[in-house]
Amino acid sequence: MSKALPKRSENYSEWYNELVKRADLAEHAAVKGCMVIKPYGFAIWEKMRDILDKMFKDTGHQNAYFPLFVPKSLFEAEEKNAEGFAKECAVVTHYRLKNNPEKKGTLMVDPDSKLEEELVVRPTSEAIIWNTYKSWIQSYRDLPLLINQWANVVRWEMRTRLFLRTTEFLWQEGHTAHATREEAIQETEQMLDVYAEFAEKYMAVPVIRGLKSANERFAGAEETYCIEAMMQDGKALQAGTSHFLGTNFGDAFDVKFLNKNNQLEPVWGTSWGVSTRLMGALIMTHSDDEGLVLPPALAPIQVVIVPIFKGQEQLQVITEAIQPLIQELKTKGIAVKFDNRDTLTPGYKFADWELKGVPVRLAIGARDLENKTVELARRDTKEKKSYPIEGIVEQVVALLNAIQENIYNKALTFRKANTFLVDSYEEFKKKLDEGGFILAHWDGTSETEEKIKEETKATIRCIPLDAPFEEGKCIYSGKASEKRVLFARAY
Amino acid sequence: MSKALPKRSENYSEWYNELVKRADLAEHAAVKGCMVIKPYGFAIWEKMRDILDKMFKDTGHQNAYFPLFVPKSLFEAEEKNAEGFAKECAVVTHYRLKNNPEKKGTLMVDPDSKLEEELVVRPTSEAIIWNTYKSWIQSYRDLPLLINQWANVVRWEMRTRLFLRTTEFLWQEGHTAHATREEAIQETEQMLDVYAEFAEKYMAVPVIRGLKSANERFAGAEETYCIEAMMQDGKALQAGTSHFLGTNFGDAFDVKFLNKNNQLEPVWGTSWGVSTRLMGALIMTHSDDEGLVLPPALAPIQVVIVPIFKGQEQLQVITEAIQPLIQELKTKGIAVKFDNRDTLTPGYKFADWELKGVPVRLAIGARDLENKTVELARRDTKEKKSYPIEGIVEQVVALLNAIQENIYNKALTFRKANTFLVDSYEEFKKKLDEGGFILAHWDGTSETEEKIKEETKATIRCIPLDAPFEEGKCIYSGKASEKRVLFARAY
Repeated sequence: MSKALPKRSENYSEWYNELVKRADLAEHAAVKGCMVIKPYGFAIWEKMRDILDKMFKDTGHQNAYFPLFVPKSLFEAEEKNAEGFAKECAVVTHYRLKNNPEKKGTLMVDPDSKLEEELVVRPTSEAIIWNTYKSWIQSYRDLPLLINQWANVVRWEMRTRLFLRTTEFLWQEGHTAHATREEAIQETEQMLDVYAEFAEKYMAVPVIRGLKSANERFAGAEETYCIEAMMQDGKALQAGTSHFLGTNFGDAFDVKFLNKNNQLEPVWGTSWGVSTRLMGALIMTHSDDEGLVLPPALAPIQVVIVPIFKGQEQLQVITEAIQPLIQELKTKGIAVKFDNRDTLTPGYKFADWELKGVPVRLAIGARDLENKTVELARRDTKEKKSYPIEGIVEQVVALLNAIQENIYNKALTFRKANTFLVDSYEEFKKKLDEGGFILAHWDGTSETEEKIKEETKATIRCIPLDAPFEEGKCIYSGKASEKRVLFARAY
Repeated sequence: MSKALPKRSENYSEWYNELVKRADLAEHAAVKGCMVIKPYGFAIWEKMRDILDKMFKDTGHQNAYFPLFVPKSLFEAEEKNAEGFAKECAVVTHYRLKNNPEKKGTLMVDPDSKLEEELVVRPTSEAIIWNTYKSWIQSYRDLPLLINQWANVVRWEMRTRLFLRTTEFLWQEGHTAHATREEAIQETEQMLDVYAEFAEKYMAVPVIRGLKSANERFAGAEETYCIEAMMQDGKALQAGTSHFLGTNFGDAFDVKFLNKNNQLEPVWGTSWGVSTRLMGALIMTHSDDEGLVLPPALAPIQVVIVPIFKGQEQLQVITEAIQPLIQELKTKGIAVKFDNRDTLTPGYKFADWELKGVPVRLAIGARDLENKTVELARRDTKEKKSYPIEGIVEQVVALLNAIQENIYNKALTFRKANTFLVDSYEEFKKKLDEGGFILAHWDGTSETEEKIKEETKATIRCIPLDAPFEEGKCIYSGKASEKRVLFARAY
């Protein structure tokens, strides 16, 4: 084990960066702003993807695949969307390299291969998809069209952080088309619920569901729904968005349908996405100064078995004795790893698997074999306890469930303890510096929102869906307000 | 149902193009050379991906993700590889668009956003991956490194065909690193066997395993292994390749490892891939003039149930009666669809599901209900037969297995019937025009291979791994040869 991680209390940001690298989740690539997702990190993402994919299919969606490139003329068609993404687009202008005559062994862009029309590497796929939907949608029988895509997207970022903000990232993007406004809104809300359920049930990350203010809305949407989570430093992280697009893309790409009365009607749209950013949310919600803390539901290794032995003979004995248990755990669908590396000490292994966030550690030595016991340690609380080997599988299952529940509750308690009702701008600024979420009245104008952002770096994370009616006055302008909105500094 | 498909015997190429579109597999995108993979086509690809992914993991590989972009300087590092792909690269040169002052509402590339170093959209990832491996591999303990990636890649193609040759395509690329030459060759051969097993067992496509000639080798490989399949027009399709890279990429990116004696040694590499091209192989091996024929192992819908009814009341009765059967099929893991659309005739539905290649059709009408029978039809032979509803699930399972076996055998018989031992160049040309594979002697020189290609458009598909020793004379040069190689025209 190399030197300890930076402490969260001393430098949260450095702790995060180091943890991501040392736990073998990801690293910076040779390409500026891009990342390499390493096998251990990718295994977590795969679990997320598989669970979400099933949830999408269970709600009637099908996967498809649309091109990586968007011709500039298509990209321009929905003006607000184009404007929103134009400043961060990778643009393909040529389709060939050739030998550089001035420097042997190197290549140069072949000027003769200039494209007539430039291609934008997709920052999101509404344009290319709605252009395709034009030929897929003619009649009410073609609706609803419920499609999802797992893909890579590119948004040129100047300041990047692993998982949180990278030039290329992996995501899924749902794109649906509907006959009515109501049905499209229902879909938008349904997918927000799917995201919230996924975050809370599998990631063990409590989230607040809400609506974005006009300033923070997706470019091209009529309404953006979001889920917001609190990280351990009190900052917010947007964990998923679901957009009601109105007829904006339908209109821009001239998609219409014939209703049952043979009349042309506009088509209503939604889009919704989550990305590898979720990895950042997962890490910053649960982990500690020793390393990752993974929810059992997403851990690639749920139980690691560490043999305590002197010499090959003891290792051999333990290895044989432990096989039935390994088989039984596997049969129960538990991902188990037997760490039989013989060049490392148990202490090194313990620290290594703590760094990697494995929820349950099972240690077994020669004396345990005699006593028919094993030691179980849980990653979240670090508690260790000896158990009879008889019935140990049930103990492990119970422990995994307890950890999943405990880390969710811990995060929820933390969020509650760091969420404040604030009624003056002075208090607002004070609480913000201490860190956390602030529920405060706002006059509903973009001007006020922008001023507050300028002065404090806090943004309106969302207008919570469950915010109760409450008469009050905007903390900034003093104007009337009917509900509190959620402010925070954010990732 | 729209008009019939073109007949294979009249225009095989048009039959293929139309089938891909009408069976809802894929279509051309608005971006030149790119395709949209539609939900039904994507569902088949997903099945392929999931099965292959499990096979890779079962042989010890892990997934990871590397960047889409390769900086030009990295791309150049392995010279042969760079040369091999330079002429078909999409190149990103700028990272921003801006409003076009000369034409309101349109965007233009912002000249101020020119990149210092151009980025190549990956045509394959050896360069970016071996550049990463440099920091992952220091000691013998870091080897072997067994990594796979599922990704999109881009190779600029002038003439494209859906699935067979598109500018962007989906694939997996395995990239492994080893301490010894022997181990790397073993890995290369193992992955070829995985591909062959997948093709034969799941796709029901018989393949010939072999080595590419130097001319057809992957740019940067010491040896390229491949599997070759025969399409119904007698042409060959390369269905997968596995490359032994020697130390070419290790050397180019200065990847070395310390062996147990603390001495630096070079690192040996392999790479191997299959792509959405497999969809083309699947279609062209089994399908007929009525549409797709899918192997049950890859069919998104394995059984379609079509109710024969007059009026809503009969439909209701059949719907209720059929529920237990649907449940039982699902419990057995069989993908079943109940086609209860009430605006279409049974005849239309039959043709529709034939077009889509569903292996088994189960029809049930009011009289069947009385008689406690159903009609099963198999897609491959078009046989129909009535069965008692009692025990029908076992019949369906047996039928699915029989279809999987039958279409494989049919394809194998076809290949055998169209593979010829040829000993003169005249006969070679004649047989080639009739269509099929030709096993002939070749003198082993690139010159002869190129001449034959120029004159006949046939290439050496591979030197079959199981080719027996046999003294003979090259059909072109008359020089001595020790084994026959496989010639064909190819996709």
